[in-house]
Amino acid sequence: MSVAAVIDLNSDVGEGFGIYTLGDDAEILDVVTSANVACGFHAGDPTVMTRTVTLAAERGVCVGAHVAYPDLAGFGRRAMDIAPAQLSACVSYQLGALDALARRAGTRVRYVKPHGALYNRIAEDEVQAGAVVEAIAAHERELTLLALPGTVAMDVARAAGVPVVAEGYADRGYTAQGRLVDRREPGAVLAEEATVVERAVALATSGEVAAVDGTSVRVEVGSICIHGDTPGAARLAAAIAGGLREAGVTLAPFG
Amino acid sequence: MSVAAVIDLNSDVGEGFGIYTLGDDAEILDVVTSANVACGFHAGDPTVMTRTVTLAAERGVCVGAHVAYPDLAGFGRRAMDIAPAQLSACVSYQLGALDALARRAGTRVRYVKPHGALYNRIAEDEVQAGAVVEAIAAHERELTLLALPGTVAMDVARAAGVPVVAEGYADRGYTAQGRLVDRREPGAVLAEEATVVERAVALATSGEVAAVDGTSVRVEVGSICIHGDTPGAARLAAAIAGGLREAGVTLAPFG
Amino acid sequence: MSVAAVIDLNSDVGEGFGIYTLGDDAEILDVVTSANVACGFHAGDPTVMTRTVTLAAERGVCVGAHVAYPDLAGFGRRAMDIAPAQLSACVSYQLGALDALARRAGTRVRYVKPHGALYNRIAEDEVQAGAVVEAIAAHERELTLLALPGTVAMDVARAAGVPVVAEGYADRGYTAQGRLVDRREPGAVLAEEATVVERAVALATSGEVAAVDGTSVRVEVGSICIHGDTPGAARLAAAIAGGLREAGVTLAPFG
Amino acid sequence: MSVAAVIDLNSDVGEGFGIYTLGDDAEILDVVTSANVACGFHAGDPTVMTRTVTLAAERGVCVGAHVAYPDLAGFGRRAMDIAPAQLSACVSYQLGALDALARRAGTRVRYVKPHGALYNRIAEDEVQAGAVVEAIAAHERELTLLALPGTVAMDVARAAGVPVVAEGYADRGYTAQGRLVDRREPGAVLAEEATVVERAVALATSGEVAAVDGTSVRVEVGSICIHGDTPGAARLAAAIAGGLREAGVTLAPFG
Repeated sequence: MSVAAVIDLNSDVGEGFGIYTLGDDAEILDVVTSANVACGFHAGDPTVMTRTVTLAAERGVCVGAHVAYPDLAGFGRRAMDIAPAQLSACVSYQLGALDALARRAGTRVRYVKPHGALYNRIAEDEVQAGAVVEAIAAHERELTLLALPGTVAMDVARAAGVPVVAEGYADRGYTAQGRLVDRREPGAVLAEEATVVERAVALATSGEVAAVDGTSVRVEVGSICIHGDTPGAARLAAAIAGGLREAGVTLAPFG
Repeated sequence: MSVAAVIDLNSDVGEGFGIYTLGDDAEILDVVTSANVACGFHAGDPTVMTRTVTLAAERGVCVGAHVAYPDLAGFGRRAMDIAPAQLSACVSYQLGALDALARRAGTRVRYVKPHGALYNRIAEDEVQAGAVVEAIAAHERELTLLALPGTVAMDVARAAGVPVVAEGYADRGYTAQGRLVDRREPGAVLAEEATVVERAVALATSGEVAAVDGTSVRVEVGSICIHGDTPGAARLAAAIAGGLREAGVTLAPFG
Repeated sequence: MSVAAVIDLNSDVGEGFGIYTLGDDAEILDVVTSANVACGFHAGDPTVMTRTVTLAAERGVCVGAHVAYPDLAGFGRRAMDIAPAQLSACVSYQLGALDALARRAGTRVRYVKPHGALYNRIAEDEVQAGAVVEAIAAHERELTLLALPGTVAMDVARAAGVPVVAEGYADRGYTAQGRLVDRREPGAVLAEEATVVERAVALATSGEVAAVDGTSVRVEVGSICIHGDTPGAARLAAAIAGGLREAGVTLAPFG
Repeated sequence: MSVAAVIDLNSDVGEGFGIYTLGDDAEILDVVTSANVACGFHAGDPTVMTRTVTLAAERGVCVGAHVAYPDLAGFGRRAMDIAPAQLSACVSYQLGALDALARRAGTRVRYVKPHGALYNRIAEDEVQAGAVVEAIAAHERELTLLALPGTVAMDVARAAGVPVVAEGYADRGYTAQGRLVDRREPGAVLAEEATVVERAVALATSGEVAAVDGTSVRVEVGSICIHGDTPGAARLAAAIAGGLREAGVTLAPFG
C-alpha cells in the first residue's frame, strides 16, 4: 500500500426533474469529491442543475457533466440509434448549458461522464464514442473523460488528446480480465458493507481486487463510482470514505 | 440623412425542430447582419442550432441567443408565470448551450433577444426582466440585450451595466409616443413593400417615421427586425437591404 | 348526524413519471374510494397510468381523470393562457387516453377532476371552464365533474347538464362564506390529526364546520379530498377513514 | 381485371406539431379514403389532431391511428428498445386519445397503422408486434391493423383475431419474393407518374406487378399507401386516384 494513495469518489447527482427528486444529493455531496450532474436530457432541469452545482460548489466538490441521450421519459437508459452529428451536438449543448450554470454558482465543469445507455454504448461503439469525444474536445475549456477502463471510449478519447480517468466500482464483481461481471451473473453486485469498503481500499491502494473466480485482478482507476440513489446509499458512501481515510488514502478530485 | 448611417438587420432563425422546418434560414441569412437563433426552448434542437450557427458563421452574420420560455408546444408564445430564479436559470442554460454550439461553428453568441411571450412580458414586468438580465450579466462573455426601446427590460439592463441595442420595425405602425400600434388596431401592420423600405431607410437615417396619426415620431434604433417566416419574407428582406444600401446606409452587426 | 351518511374520499395518485415516483399510491388507494389519476400532461405516463388504474381496479376504487395543462416541467401548477379550443382538445385527449388504459385494467373513467393551476383557473374563468366542460360533455360515457363548491366551473357544468360533485377539505380552514382560507393567511392549513378527523366527520354528517372566525359554516360536499404526497399522508388518510367509519359514515365512491 | 375491383388509398396526415405544419393535409384528404392520423407521440398534438379528424370527417375519409414510439424529437424514426408492457400502454394511450377527439369530430378510429421505426420493427420483432396487437385487441371498438403483407405483425394480429389489411406501394419496387426493394438498392423508388399510376392499377386489379428483376410478382393488398409530404405529393395522389377510377376501380375505405 502506497502511503501517498489518492483517489476520487464520484456519484450521480442532480437527477431530479421539476417537482421530482431522486436520491439525497446533499448527503452524497458531503462525501464524494466529484459530482456527475445531470444536464436536462435524461434528468435535471435548469433549476435542479442550479441547485446541484451550488451544493457542489459549497462543498468544494468537482463538477462533471453527466451527458445523456435526449430521453427524459426513459431516464437515458434506452439505447438510441442517433446520428453521430446529432449526438455530438447534443453533448455540446449539455456541456455548454451546465457550464453556464456552474459558472453562476462559482465553479466550472471539469469533466464529462456519459450516462446510462450512452455510457454503455460508447464502451463498444466507435462511432458514437467519436461523436462524444469530438464534443468534449471542442469545448472551450479542457475536460476530462471519466469512463470504464479498457473501453472503446477510452481509446478514442486518448487518440483525440482528451484526458481520461478510469473509474472502478467497489460494489461490483470483476472478471479475471478486469471487466465488470454481467449483472445477470452471480457475483455481479456486492452488498456487504465491509466487503465493499475493503474493495474500495484495494482499488485505491494496490489496484488489485479479487476477481469473481478467486484470482486477483489488476484494476487501475483514478475514481471510484458511488451509487447515490439506492436505499442506504449515503451511509455506504460515508463508510467507503471513512474506510479509505482510515487506510491512509487521500480523497481528492481528479478534475 | 447622415452619410455615415449604419444599421443592423436582425431576424429570427433556426426555428425548426426535428423534422420540422420554418422559414428559409439560408435566404434570410444572406440578407441580415444579426441572427436571433432559437435555443431549444420554443424551437430549435441541438442539430438545428448547429446548422443555423454554421450558416450564420459562413455568412459572417452575428449570432444572438433567441431565449424563450420552456414551451415547445406553444412556440414560446404563451405568457408563463415562472419563478424568477427558474427563468434566470432557463436563460443561462440556453445561453451556454447555444454558445457551445456557436463556438464549434467558429463563432460566438454576442447578444440576446428574448422571444415571443417573454419578449412582451419583460417589456413591462420588472421581476422577469431582472431575471433575464441577471442571466445575461452572469454569462462568461459580454452580451448585448436587443429589445424594444422604452421598455422596462431596457431600463433594467442599463441599470445592471448590460449593453443594450434598441430595435425597430419597418413594417409596423408607430404611435405618436413611439410605441408599436397594437396589432388589433388599424395601421398596425404595413404590407406595401415600397412603404416598408422607405420606413426602414427613415429608421436608419433620420430616426424619424410617420406615426399612425400623421405626426412624425422619433424612433432611435440600432437594429431593424426583419420577419423571416411570412410568405415573401426573404424577398421583402432583400428589398429592405437593397433600399438601405441605395440610401447610403451601411449594414453591419451591432454585436 | 344522519345515520345514513355516505361520503367519498378522493386523492391524487399516479403522479410519478418514468423513473420518478411521488407519494405511496398503494397505501393511499387502500383508503380512498376515488382516485384522481394523472393523465400524462402534468405527471404520469402510459406505464405509470396503467400501474395506477390497475391498483385502483384491484381495490374497487373509482377512477377519475386528473386532467391538467400540458406542463410536465411545471407539474401543471403554472397558469397557462391557452386558447379554449386547445384546452378542450387537451382534456378530451387525456380523457380518451386514460379511459383506454382503465378499460384494459377492467375499469373505466367515471369522473374528472382538473388539476393544479387548471383547477384554480376554472374556479373563476368562465372561458376555460367552458372548454373543460365541453370536453367532459363530449366524452362517450357520462362523467361527473369533481370541483370546489360555489365555483364558476360548477355553474358551467350544471348549465351544460354535466353531473357535478362538490369536494371539501378536512385539513383546510374555511371562511364564514364557505371559501377556503387563503394559504397565506393564518388558519389555512390544519395539521392536528384529531382536528382533521373531527372536521371530516362534520363535513360528512352535519355539513357544518367551524369557520376561521369561529362561526359555523355550511359546506355541502359529496367527497373529501385527501392529500397523498405529504409525509404521513397515508397515516392521516387512514385516521380520517377510521374516524368516519366510527362515526357511522359509509365510505363509497360517488362515481 | 375484375370489374368489381375496390381499393383503399391511405396516407399519413396530421403530422404537424404546435406551430409546425407538414404536408398539405386538406389536399391529400380530398383524394385518399383512409387517413393515418398522428397521435402526439411522433407528431401531432391535441389541436392538430382535432383539425385533422375534422377534415377527414368532412370528407368521409376513414380515420386510423398512426401510433408511434414516444419520440417527437426523432419523428418516431428511431428504433427504440422499449419494454413490451410500456409499448402496449403507449399504443392504448394513443388509441384512446385519438378516438376521443375523432368522436368529437363525428367520426371514430377504425384502424391502426404503426408509424416509422415501429412499423419496421414489428415487421420482424414478435415481442413488439405482440405488444401492439394486444393494445389493438384490448380497444373498446374493433380495429383493423394496416400493415405490410408477409410480416410478423400480420401473423401476430391474425393469431390474436385482429382483422388485418395489407397495404402496397405504387411508387416502390418489389422483389420477386414480393418484398419492398431496399431503399439503398436501385429500383427501390419509382418517380415517373405514369409508371406509378399504372402500378397502382395493377395492385388494385390483377394484384400482379413487375418485380425489380423483370418477373411478375403477386402482391395482394387492400390498400395503397400514398406519400403525402413529398413535393408534388397531392398531384401524384390525384393522378393515382384518377387512374384507378378510369380503370374502373372503386375507391373505398376498408375500415
